[in-house]
Amino acid sequence: MAEVNALDALIQALRRLPGVGVKSAQRMAFHLLQHDRAGAQLLSRALQLAAESVQHCERCHTFAQTVICSTCLDPRRDATKLCVVETPADQAALERTGAYKGLYFVLMGKLSPLDGVGPKEIGLRSLFERACDGVVQEVILATNFTAEGEATAHVIRQGLSARGLQLTRLARGVPVGSELEYVDLGTIAHALADRRES
Amino acid sequence: MAEVNALDALIQALRRLPGVGVKSAQRMAFHLLQHDRAGAQLLSRALQLAAESVQHCERCHTFAQTVICSTCLDPRRDATKLCVVETPADQAALERTGAYKGLYFVLMGKLSPLDGVGPKEIGLRSLFERACDGVVQEVILATNFTAEGEATAHVIRQGLSARGLQLTRLARGVPVGSELEYVDLGTIAHALADRRES
Repeated sequence: MAEVNALDALIQALRRLPGVGVKSAQRMAFHLLQHDRAGAQLLSRALQLAAESVQHCERCHTFAQTVICSTCLDPRRDATKLCVVETPADQAALERTGAYKGLYFVLMGKLSPLDGVGPKEIGLRSLFERACDGVVQEVILATNFTAEGEATAHVIRQGLSARGLQLTRLARGVPVGSELEYVDLGTIAHALADRRES
Repeated sequence: MAEVNALDALIQALRRLPGVGVKSAQRMAFHLLQHDRAGAQLLSRALQLAAESVQHCERCHTFAQTVICSTCLDPRRDATKLCVVETPADQAALERTGAYKGLYFVLMGKLSPLDGVGPKEIGLRSLFERACDGVVQEVILATNFTAEGEATAHVIRQGLSARGLQLTRLARGVPVGSELEYVDLGTIAHALADRRES
């Protein structure tokens, strides 16, 4: 069916999106063509613009359209603190809390030996250089509390332990709003061990 | 953060896809920018091309890049049979069986009064005109076996009942490969009522 090749090509292209199989891709293509051609055009332009203009900040490695991102350039941020996160989404979550005024280093990944992602792939060397700029005093390890995130934090801790920096990790404990009955045992054990004066 | 607006715009645009919330959109955007810029460019071009070139076949209403689609133009198809389906995906499913050699009419929707989709929105009048071209002898109702699909089939049946056409509906029954124990009761009841000589 030669005349539907633009449609087939669109369905194939949509499958490049993570988590999108052939059924979802069909549904997306039909939806855009039937109900939202303006959305299709908008998405096309947004993809083109982002693919051309979004680079990585040279200092913190997050996505940016300038050589150094605005967070790294902001003189009001506390340059003695460096928070290490896995992804820009994690950074955004921390920013939304409004509770952190230091700088970031975004690994853009995590150690995952099974997938061939080692210290070199996530740029640990440039993290170590960045952390040892003489200004940073505390490195806050905010990788995820998964096996891979913990392993990543462990390797960073090892790499920075002899550099005279304070190394901290986000607190583990009971999530706000949760009932103990439904919290997993490992979390309760951590919360007990790290209990605080009240 | 002015420098990430191409990224934010991409995340917003991805949310126009059906079933994509803000978390999925972030994950898609990060994946494309971090691991698959070629995929982003490919998808951008595919969207643009499809939005510009895909129209509806004048005869059967399916997606096509020509005025009349290749299926409708194919002289080897049996023009006495017209199969009515809801979407091009349903048409594709029937085509994949290789068991049907007639023509199609694609409603590009289904009756859904609650969503404001009535007979006019799904072009029932042009279906009636198409079915009464003097060549079509049998109209096969292949709308989905959902409440809305059944209602759509019912309205089509009413509209065509006095036109001297044979009206058929896809058989309801036990799916191939399934165990009776796990088949719903309505399906078993239909399969019993429509049982055949074996």
